[in-house]
Amino acid sequence: MRTTTPRCCLMLTAAGSLIAAAASLTPAGAQDACGAAPEVPTHHHLPANAETVHWGYFSQQRAPQLFVHSGDLVTLETLTHHANDDAERMVEGDPGAESVFAWSADAKGVDRRGAGPLDASIHGRGAGEGFGVHILTGPIHVCGAAPGDVLEVEILDLAPRPSGNPEYAGKTFGSNAAAWWGYHYNDLIEEPKPREVITIYEIDASGARDWARAVYNYRWVPQTDPYGVVHEIIDYPGVPVDHSTITRNHPILSGVRVPIRPHFGTMGVVPREADVVDSIPPAYFGGNIDNWRIGTGGTMYYPVAVAGGLLSAGDPHAAQGDSELAGTAIETSLTGLVRLVLHKEGSLAGTPLEGLDFPLLETEREWVVHGFSYANYLADLGETAQSDIYGNSSVDGAMRDAFRKMRRFLMTAYGLSEDEAVSLMSVAVDFGITQVVDGNWGVHGVLEKRIFTAE
Amino acid sequence: MRTTTPRCCLMLTAAGSLIAAAASLTPAGAQDACGAAPEVPTHHHLPANAETVHWGYFSQQRAPQLFVHSGDLVTLETLTHHANDDAERMVEGDPGAESVFAWSADAKGVDRRGAGPLDASIHGRGAGEGFGVHILTGPIHVCGAAPGDVLEVEILDLAPRPSGNPEYAGKTFGSNAAAWWGYHYNDLIEEPKPREVITIYEIDASGARDWARAVYNYRWVPQTDPYGVVHEIIDYPGVPVDHSTITRNHPILSGVRVPIRPHFGTMGVVPREADVVDSIPPAYFGGNIDNWRIGTGGTMYYPVAVAGGLLSAGDPHAAQGDSELAGTAIETSLTGLVRLVLHKEGSLAGTPLEGLDFPLLETEREWVVHGFSYANYLADLGETAQSDIYGNSSVDGAMRDAFRKMRRFLMTAYGLSEDEAVSLMSVAVDFGITQVVDGNWGVHGVLEKRIFTAE
Repeated sequence: MRTTTPRCCLMLTAAGSLIAAAASLTPAGAQDACGAAPEVPTHHHLPANAETVHWGYFSQQRAPQLFVHSGDLVTLETLTHHANDDAERMVEGDPGAESVFAWSADAKGVDRRGAGPLDASIHGRGAGEGFGVHILTGPIHVCGAAPGDVLEVEILDLAPRPSGNPEYAGKTFGSNAAAWWGYHYNDLIEEPKPREVITIYEIDASGARDWARAVYNYRWVPQTDPYGVVHEIIDYPGVPVDHSTITRNHPILSGVRVPIRPHFGTMGVVPREADVVDSIPPAYFGGNIDNWRIGTGGTMYYPVAVAGGLLSAGDPHAAQGDSELAGTAIETSLTGLVRLVLHKEGSLAGTPLEGLDFPLLETEREWVVHGFSYANYLADLGETAQSDIYGNSSVDGAMRDAFRKMRRFLMTAYGLSEDEAVSLMSVAVDFGITQVVDGNWGVHGVLEKRIFTAE
Repeated sequence: MRTTTPRCCLMLTAAGSLIAAAASLTPAGAQDACGAAPEVPTHHHLPANAETVHWGYFSQQRAPQLFVHSGDLVTLETLTHHANDDAERMVEGDPGAESVFAWSADAKGVDRRGAGPLDASIHGRGAGEGFGVHILTGPIHVCGAAPGDVLEVEILDLAPRPSGNPEYAGKTFGSNAAAWWGYHYNDLIEEPKPREVITIYEIDASGARDWARAVYNYRWVPQTDPYGVVHEIIDYPGVPVDHSTITRNHPILSGVRVPIRPHFGTMGVVPREADVVDSIPPAYFGGNIDNWRIGTGGTMYYPVAVAGGLLSAGDPHAAQGDSELAGTAIETSLTGLVRLVLHKEGSLAGTPLEGLDFPLLETEREWVVHGFSYANYLADLGETAQSDIYGNSSVDGAMRDAFRKMRRFLMTAYGLSEDEAVSLMSVAVDFGITQVVDGNWGVHGVLEKRIFTAE
């Protein structure tokens, strides 16, 4: 059955062809590109276009698009991979998006989409097979970063990317796909079953209005891509939707204002376990965590797994609920301003980051640990991890992992005994369901900082 | 192994002896006790003492302790079943608590504790076997309530019950037990393993201070109850802890202030499926939901399952985190002020309560649906449900149930199509883990009311 098609069928073997696909600057040249750290931090700008993004995977072999020193600022453009659900609103007139989504009968702006084979020999969906779907800007090589270090990413701002189409000046749009990988898909009550539905939302591009509204929705119908492949379901990212084939329903969700919570759905460093990794399942290296708290004012800490760390970000969201139930958020292009700070392994002892082996979020008021069905599915599930993870999704597993991580954090960061940590967790820590749609499902534990006084 | 002892081994057969244990007023006399509704709502006071509480079970055969009409107010005293963890602070000098916890070599203030056999013929722990642990005040018969109706319980106030011991004037205490039914118990990292730990917390009895602090903790050691039964673990509620046998550790959790969130851990109506029901697993009738949001300002809606509804409340908590990880909250006696409003079945059409078949919470800002591993485990698991539920606990099941309930609520209360409901859930509803310690584990879905405008 189509709905049980595995998202990814890769073994943990190298996909050498990626090297050819990447730009000419390879990690071997990293030291030269770093040079000495300047006295004043540099503010970089990394745009999103067909050259600076990679689509659907993390890879050690993808050449860095930027070299930064600890303390540098980066204005980081990110694009939603759902922009072609309504290209008129989310692609047209935006040169960066147009370059990424370009797709004619002869060529694509970005060919590989996913960690699958470039020749689409498994399902024939397209290069990369859509085993991984997120447009990721980067990676960013952090000079001096080495395995064992921790990379801090402070999110100073996240702004909606205005529509490039003059007809929609001052507006930003996003797409919510209730898709075949959604939690609801095999559990529908209305006919026809199953079905995939795209809902287009509108956001105020100035950021002044703190809510989104639905504009219209439509049911997915088979789409033929420019290469002639028919996509019966949403099985390959960036397929242009021919709006002459679909029926727009409106008004919908009348009077509904969705509070916006802009965040990066996906941000992380490159894992060490495989050369090319599907962007969908999150794990110790971060990635597609899909926690709406990873927004402005939030600071992420990632354990560095490869030289340079190689940070990428994308999958920008205007709003998402805990669980991301239907499979996606309001998928909306955003531009972030982030500060990157490298914490060398030798400096971590006695700090909350000591021995950190998972992605940790700090906000003004909270610490948030991230648990997953498998803490490191790439190692835990062996050579077939990237396909097997989709059959082993479990909130129960993620809760177990989140419990262990919160206990460890309380004992490390605040010096509690296990008995103190367990009691405090029971009376004061909230565990929530991050997502149930990314293969490696997530549970987060939220600890309020105000609990700890200087007393 | 002791830690895998099932909590409850009852079949869904009547325990006729309960009738004898109950007061003389049986449900058959309910109509007479109701009379005509007065023009002005009555304010009742239901104290907590050995007569007004039942311990560890819900039962259709337990005689009502109070008859009220729709709209009446009730000041409702509730006692924590953990008070004997430190009787000096939580029982002594409090006549109500003393009458409930009274236990000499010859008699107990409240004999039955749990839904098990009165002769303790299964494990020998004591009457009721501790298959259910909560001290519940009630039940309250709501005049005119019938199956199909919905009972609304508005919590107007929840105040700490001051220590009755003059030595602790102005203070209230609570106990947190990290016990064998806790989520952590078989997953400990420090020695000795396993172990149970009681932490005593102190709260300001005036309610002015919004945090609790830990006073000391101790490891559970075998306790011999006044009948001579040795309790190697915390396997029977209300066993008096002999403080000459334990070692108090302090200071603990120095500088930690636990934000208080007073709430009823357990409140609900009597289910229809069995005569005597273990108080631990929550389900459609409410019961031991253990959601800290069920506090002052909150309104619960319960589907009435038996004549009169028969509402009881107890298991009061000063604070709890989502998950109630170690098995308990800060278990603290509280006195509530509640208003009971009956919504007859015929009045529900077109309201958010239409067809309600689960416990629903409304607060000023939110609607909260409650999902469980099994929506109605008593029916879903058949005759051995009350023991089998403990082997079928699952957050995954509870998430599935919570999703279905939130979808249903959005479609019923706000008239959304399924497509609208699914999209809105994905972008705006937060799902959290209520508890992983009550057999029938819980997931709640939180919907913000501000999403819906008058537009």
